[in-house]
Amino acid sequence: MSIITLITDFGIEDAYVGVMKGVALSINSSATFVDITHHVNPQDIVQAAYLIKSSYKYFPEGTVHMIVVDPGVGSERPIIALEMKGQFFLAPDNGVLTLLMDEGKIDSLARVENKRFFLKTISQTFHGRDIFAPVSANISKGIKIKELGPPLDRQELVHLTIQKPYTSKQGELVGTVVSIDHFGNITTNIDEPCLKKFYITNQVKKLEIFIGKNRIKGLSNSYSSVKRHHPLAIIGSFGYLEIALNQGNAGRYFEAKKGDTIFIKDLQEIHREE
Amino acid sequence: MSIITLITDFGIEDAYVGVMKGVALSINSSATFVDITHHVNPQDIVQAAYLIKSSYKYFPEGTVHMIVVDPGVGSERPIIALEMKGQFFLAPDNGVLTLLMDEGKIDSLARVENKRFFLKTISQTFHGRDIFAPVSANISKGIKIKELGPPLDRQELVHLTIQKPYTSKQGELVGTVVSIDHFGNITTNIDEPCLKKFYITNQVKKLEIFIGKNRIKGLSNSYSSVKRHHPLAIIGSFGYLEIALNQGNAGRYFEAKKGDTIFIKDLQEIHREE
Amino acid sequence: MSIITLITDFGIEDAYVGVMKGVALSINSSATFVDITHHVNPQDIVQAAYLIKSSYKYFPEGTVHMIVVDPGVGSERPIIALEMKGQFFLAPDNGVLTLLMDEGKIDSLARVENKRFFLKTISQTFHGRDIFAPVSANISKGIKIKELGPPLDRQELVHLTIQKPYTSKQGELVGTVVSIDHFGNITTNIDEPCLKKFYITNQVKKLEIFIGKNRIKGLSNSYSSVKRHHPLAIIGSFGYLEIALNQGNAGRYFEAKKGDTIFIKDLQEIHREE
Repeated sequence: MSIITLITDFGIEDAYVGVMKGVALSINSSATFVDITHHVNPQDIVQAAYLIKSSYKYFPEGTVHMIVVDPGVGSERPIIALEMKGQFFLAPDNGVLTLLMDEGKIDSLARVENKRFFLKTISQTFHGRDIFAPVSANISKGIKIKELGPPLDRQELVHLTIQKPYTSKQGELVGTVVSIDHFGNITTNIDEPCLKKFYITNQVKKLEIFIGKNRIKGLSNSYSSVKRHHPLAIIGSFGYLEIALNQGNAGRYFEAKKGDTIFIKDLQEIHREE
Repeated sequence: MSIITLITDFGIEDAYVGVMKGVALSINSSATFVDITHHVNPQDIVQAAYLIKSSYKYFPEGTVHMIVVDPGVGSERPIIALEMKGQFFLAPDNGVLTLLMDEGKIDSLARVENKRFFLKTISQTFHGRDIFAPVSANISKGIKIKELGPPLDRQELVHLTIQKPYTSKQGELVGTVVSIDHFGNITTNIDEPCLKKFYITNQVKKLEIFIGKNRIKGLSNSYSSVKRHHPLAIIGSFGYLEIALNQGNAGRYFEAKKGDTIFIKDLQEIHREE
Repeated sequence: MSIITLITDFGIEDAYVGVMKGVALSINSSATFVDITHHVNPQDIVQAAYLIKSSYKYFPEGTVHMIVVDPGVGSERPIIALEMKGQFFLAPDNGVLTLLMDEGKIDSLARVENKRFFLKTISQTFHGRDIFAPVSANISKGIKIKELGPPLDRQELVHLTIQKPYTSKQGELVGTVVSIDHFGNITTNIDEPCLKKFYITNQVKKLEIFIGKNRIKGLSNSYSSVKRHHPLAIIGSFGYLEIALNQGNAGRYFEAKKGDTIFIKDLQEIHREE
C-alpha cells in the first residue's frame, strides 16, 4: 500500500496534476493517489493549512501527503519533509504545515535537497512535477526523511500567524470565518474545546451567535433539527463551529466571506443587558 | 479487485471526498475508487437517482456504489444497503435508489445499523465519512449485506415519485427535461421503449419534437448528421430522448432548464391539422 | 502496472468519465487511471493536441493514453491507435495527435475496427464508453496495435494546421496565445528553441515582449524574481514562453484570450528606433 494525497491550488483544467501523477507512477507504479483538493484558492497558504490539519488523521499509517501551495516556487524557499504520527508530509517551507505541527510530536524533519530523488531537469516554475512528485513517490517506496537532506529543527521553519479566537473586553468570544464550503456552510476558527472553555468560564447556559447583523440562538445537533432553509449553528464534522442553513446556502444567505468576524455571547447575559 | 464508486453532492473544493477515501483505504487498502460525480446539485435526489440507474450496469460484478446525497443527514432517516445483479449499493433511505430498484430483483436489503462497521465517533453532519465510507469498504472486503443490520422489505423504503412521460388528451407524448449535460445536451425522461410505443400506438411515421417555441423534425442517428450548430433530436447514449446541437450548446440555444416540458407529435398529424 | 490516462472535453458533472472507467475496469481490473483533464473546451482539438504533447513524456513505458475530444462522433471519422516511444495512444482521426507525432517515430499505427474489442452495443453518441474505454483496457492488457485493425500510414491521417511562430517583415518574432491556465498564466506557441534561434539570428541581447498595449522587458528566471503582482515573461515548465504575474492572474491583468498575438523585439533595436 502506497497512498499519496495531494493538496494543491492547481485546479483541474490543466495537465499539471496528471503530469505529477505520471512522474510519481514512473517511480512507484503501485501508488494510489487521493486528491484531497486542487481547488485551494491560488496561493492561499492558510486555507491549505486548515485542509491538511483536518484531513490527515483519516488516512492510514504510511500515507504520504503532498501539499503544493507554493507562491515562492523558484525562489530560495526550501522544501521540507517530515514524519509525524506514522505519516509523511512534503511541503514548501512557507508555513502551510503550521496547524498540522500543533497536532503532535515531529519524529523526523529534513530540508529536501538530495537531487538524487528529483527529476533530472528542475524547472523554476513547477516543482510539483520536478521535486514534490518524485520525492513523494520515493518516500512512499520507503526512503527515509533523513535521506532527503539535512535535518531541521521545527524552530527553523516558517511559522504562519493564524488568527485565533479571543475574548473581547465585553466578554464576547470573537472568531473568524475560515472557509465557506461547497454547500455554503460557514466554518469558523472556533473549535469545540475553545467553545467549551467559554461555556465553563462564563457559566453560559445558552449561546447567541452573531454574524453580520444576524443572530442565531443556541447550538443545533444536526442540520435537520431546524426547518428547511432556516439558519443554525452547529459543531461541524471537523470540530469547528459552523453556521449553516438546513438544505440551503448560508454563505449566500448571510453574504459571508472569509475573514468575517463572528461574535458569541451568553444569551442570558444579553437578556440581562436588554 | 475492490471497486468503490461515489456519487455525491459534495463538490471537489473541500476535503470531504478525499477524507472519505482515506477512511475507506484505512479499512481496505486495495480499494479502487471511481468518482462518478461529486457535482449532483446540492440535495437533488432525483438527479442522483438517474445517475446511479444509468451508470451501474457498466461496472463489473462486486462493485460497491456509494450514493451520498443526503439532505436528512443527522435526522432519523435510515441508511440502506442492498445487493442487486451482483453489485452493492449504499444510500440514505430517501428515494435515491427508486429508479435503480425498477431495474431488477433485489437479492438482499438491510437497514445499516451495525456500529461495528462505522467509525468510532459519528458526527451528525458527515455520515459520508463516518458511516458510508467505512461500510462501503467493509462490503468491498466481503462483509455481507445481512451483517450490516436488520433485513428490510423494499415496500418499507421511501419511494420517490419521479415524473414519467404521459400521453395528453390531444394525443401528444409529453415529457420533461431531466438534465442538461456539460455539452449542453438536453436529456428528457422519454426513453426508447416509451418512444417506440408511441410510434406503434399512433402509427407515427415521423416525429416532431417541441421544446419551448421551437420544433425539431425527426430523429437523427448522430450529432454530425445535421449541419454544425444545427439542432437535432437523438436517442442518447443512456437510452433517453436527447435534444442537442451539433458541436453547440442546446441548453443555451433553447434556454432550457430542468423540469421544462417537451411535446412530441406525429409530423403527419400536424400537417393534416394545418 | 496498467496505467490509462484520459484527456476529454466531458467535464466532471455527468457520469460519462466514471462510466468509461467502469467499462475499462470490467476488462482490466488492475487498471490505474490518471485524469489528465476533462476540461478541454468542448470540441477544442488544438488544445487537446498541446495537452497530450506536453504530458505523455512524464508517464512510464506502457502507459495507454486515451484522447476523447471527438466532435465527429458517430460520423465516418475513424479511430486510430498508435505506439510511440513505448507508449500507446488512442484518439479519433481528427488531428488531435498532430503535435505528438512530431515528437518521434511511430512504431505501429492502425485504424481501430476490430469489434471484438468494443462493447457489444455501439451508440452513435458515446464512443468514449463503447470503443475508447474497452480498447484502451485491452491495450493495457497487452493486445497489440496491429490486432485492432488494418495498418495505416501516418500520411493517411488528418493533420491539423497549427499556427506556428514566424518572423515578420519588421524582424519581430510573432507568436500566439495558446492557453491561459488556472493561475492566469498565459502560454504562447513560442518554444525555447524558437526563441534561441531568434536570439542568435538577430544577435539579440535583451528581449522586449509585447502583449496588447503592454510590454515586458527581458526574461525572468522565476515568478518571484519580480515584485508581487508585477508582470514577467518566463520559459514555462513545458518549454514555452509564458507571460505571468507574480502571485497574480496575468490573463485577467492583460485581458488576454486564446489566439491573441504576441510580438517579440530586440530591446536594443527598439531603443535605436526611438
